Amino acid sequence: MKRREENEIEFGRIVAFSDGVFSIAITLLVLNLTVKKGLSTADLTNELLDQWDNLLAFALSFAVIGRFWVVHHRFFAEVDAFDGRLLGLNLLYLASIVLIPFSSQVLGEYGGETPSVVLYSVNLAAVVLIGLWMGVDARRRGLTSIDDETHRESRVRASYIAGVFLLSIPLAFFVPRAAAYLWFLLFLDPSRRLVRRATSEAGP
Amino acid sequence: MKRREENEIEFGRIVAFSDGVFSIAITLLVLNLTVKKGLSTADLTNELLDQWDNLLAFALSFAVIGRFWVVHHRFFAEVDAFDGRLLGLNLLYLASIVLIPFSSQVLGEYGGETPSVVLYSVNLAAVVLIGLWMGVDARRRGLTSIDDETHRESRVRASYIAGVFLLSIPLAFFVPRAAAYLWFLLFLDPSRRLVRRATSEAGP
Amino acid sequence: MKRREENEIEFGRIVAFSDGVFSIAITLLVLNLTVKKGLSTADLTNELLDQWDNLLAFALSFAVIGRFWVVHHRFFAEVDAFDGRLLGLNLLYLASIVLIPFSSQVLGEYGGETPSVVLYSVNLAAVVLIGLWMGVDARRRGLTSIDDETHRESRVRASYIAGVFLLSIPLAFFVPRAAAYLWFLLFLDPSRRLVRRATSEAGP
Amino acid sequence: MKRREENEIEFGRIVAFSDGVFSIAITLLVLNLTVKKGLSTADLTNELLDQWDNLLAFALSFAVIGRFWVVHHRFFAEVDAFDGRLLGLNLLYLASIVLIPFSSQVLGEYGGETPSVVLYSVNLAAVVLIGLWMGVDARRRGLTSIDDETHRESRVRASYIAGVFLLSIPLAFFVPRAAAYLWFLLFLDPSRRLVRRATSEAGP
Repeated sequence: MKRREENEIEFGRIVAFSDGVFSIAITLLVLNLTVKKGLSTADLTNELLDQWDNLLAFALSFAVIGRFWVVHHRFFAEVDAFDGRLLGLNLLYLASIVLIPFSSQVLGEYGGETPSVVLYSVNLAAVVLIGLWMGVDARRRGLTSIDDETHRESRVRASYIAGVFLLSIPLAFFVPRAAAYLWFLLFLDPSRRLVRRATSEAGP
Repeated sequence: MKRREENEIEFGRIVAFSDGVFSIAITLLVLNLTVKKGLSTADLTNELLDQWDNLLAFALSFAVIGRFWVVHHRFFAEVDAFDGRLLGLNLLYLASIVLIPFSSQVLGEYGGETPSVVLYSVNLAAVVLIGLWMGVDARRRGLTSIDDETHRESRVRASYIAGVFLLSIPLAFFVPRAAAYLWFLLFLDPSRRLVRRATSEAGP
Repeated sequence: MKRREENEIEFGRIVAFSDGVFSIAITLLVLNLTVKKGLSTADLTNELLDQWDNLLAFALSFAVIGRFWVVHHRFFAEVDAFDGRLLGLNLLYLASIVLIPFSSQVLGEYGGETPSVVLYSVNLAAVVLIGLWMGVDARRRGLTSIDDETHRESRVRASYIAGVFLLSIPLAFFVPRAAAYLWFLLFLDPSRRLVRRATSEAGP
Repeated sequence: MKRREENEIEFGRIVAFSDGVFSIAITLLVLNLTVKKGLSTADLTNELLDQWDNLLAFALSFAVIGRFWVVHHRFFAEVDAFDGRLLGLNLLYLASIVLIPFSSQVLGEYGGETPSVVLYSVNLAAVVLIGLWMGVDARRRGLTSIDDETHRESRVRASYIAGVFLLSIPLAFFVPRAAAYLWFLLFLDPSRRLVRRATSEAGP
């Protein structure tokens, strides 16, 4: 275990590497938008309109990766020490982030289909659960100085997000499009109320 | 809201992440240039000459993203504090930047067609307008220390650039190629004169 | 030869450039996962299940590049001075890292075939041997302050890893799939015992 | 014009952005290596052997971009002040760097053909000449503190490299493969002798 303040450069490289992966993954999303060559003007218009689903998937995944980056950012701002295990979990976390452009491509091409919704849900639930694991593990081993309340809040929030994605998997087998709409619950963010309730219940 | 000087590392990550996205988006432009395999020498020459439109789109988009990077760079040099809202707007801004390689690909393939010119114009107008929104919003909430004159200047300039792109949309329905030429107005940059006039009118 | 402490910015750029290459190479792995357009739901399910080999190759290569990044990271943390020769060897090292997404793509598409296993083994053995060369060379010329034990340990470990990959090449000509399983020896990491033995033999 | 020491963060962003572009361009080279899906083992072996030219182009371009990165790195280490013009020239320089993966792809696919050799030569000569322009311009306007000898040396060297590439253009029309061999002159680097002579001639 290395203290952060004594290894600021090494710690900086971990953060810079993670930021690099996040920024590349979020930018690669644009490669899911393409048009064929040699179309007529009318066909080009149709082709571009057909990209609507891809554009929605792009917007969703951009928001999702951006949001995860903010969370990752906030978590590492509180990390005081690191070791090989945190590095390993961080790599696992980044691997699940890097898969998003693929899941997003499938979702964009096959928006209303069961397999694509399941793939996307599994991928995002994996990101959230690995992130939760990394956070709980780092805290248990004394690598972060996150206070109790913030920790409880982020645990509740992560469980809520993972729950929405896991719930959308069975739903995708019956009404795939509805599963996608379920994700909009994440923007309503009722987790705030859940967080408040959990906090007041656990309060002194 | 966090003060920049007390969160230099966190602030640095936002800037580094944005720089990463800019540098990847600008480099991905090269992927729009490709040649087929297995051509004869004569066909290869033709194929390369056919890339001329793609090369023009590459040059235009490289200049455009490079220019936006300089503007973003200058704006964040004046940011003193940040919060979740600025981060969100910055992500929205970056999303519109990341779409440029796609719009550029369509423009390169279908230079003189209405849909491609409209797509490119909408994309670039979106970048400028979101940037304007981010700037005005940050200033209103006291996150930047940009002085009045610089602020007015950048507002006038952004409106001018957005205006050129928005104007080229209706034009693209009648004379698509002319719309593209309209963009060269941006290089003439009469906004300087506009800026001076706006400044002297609003002057003390 | 330049001392690190007097050229911290220049040194920082070398490290940042290397980190950039690592993070891009690791993220490009996702481009090896793709699905065709316009499939039926049943075909999409099959197509996704057919990605299983590609996903395994992705996971393996992500772990491998991540691991090499950690090693590179640790090595450069001990570098005290640099010159053109170290820069050149570092570029050669990065070139072999950058080839991994290609070898990984071939491995994912043709998992059980001799040529793909040979290609992957050659590529990874090259990474390890160039890394070993860079490390031994830097130490001989007094550019690092790595202590004797750590140096011996990393030399033994590198030889072990390169050995496993080189051994899997002849094996790939007879039982290609077995060669791939051989790589799992790397996760068992018996090199630790080898390191201890080599250390105690060479001990005082 | 801004002094570097008073704008270290802004200056750092320019360098970081350039490094980002270099590291992405150098990593994208790997995308020029691909294999078709669904080949038999024998066909796969042939396909991989057919990648030999692509691998040579990869190695050449990796060395070239890596070399240009070292030169860029060294130049910016001596930059004391920057302005919009230096930023613009740097963007132009980076644009020519970003085109290398494309030229390299064409060279890899059509190694012995006139158009591909011409394209590659024009691209690399453009990089060198723009770099020379940036260096001379920055020095004339007092933005760098490069001493006379180093400046003369780099000017001679850049002229030599540009000369080799420009010379290979007419040669490519008669013996395209010979033109490529001419590039190996760059590795012999007789420019050192030229530098010495030019230095002694211009000496005190």
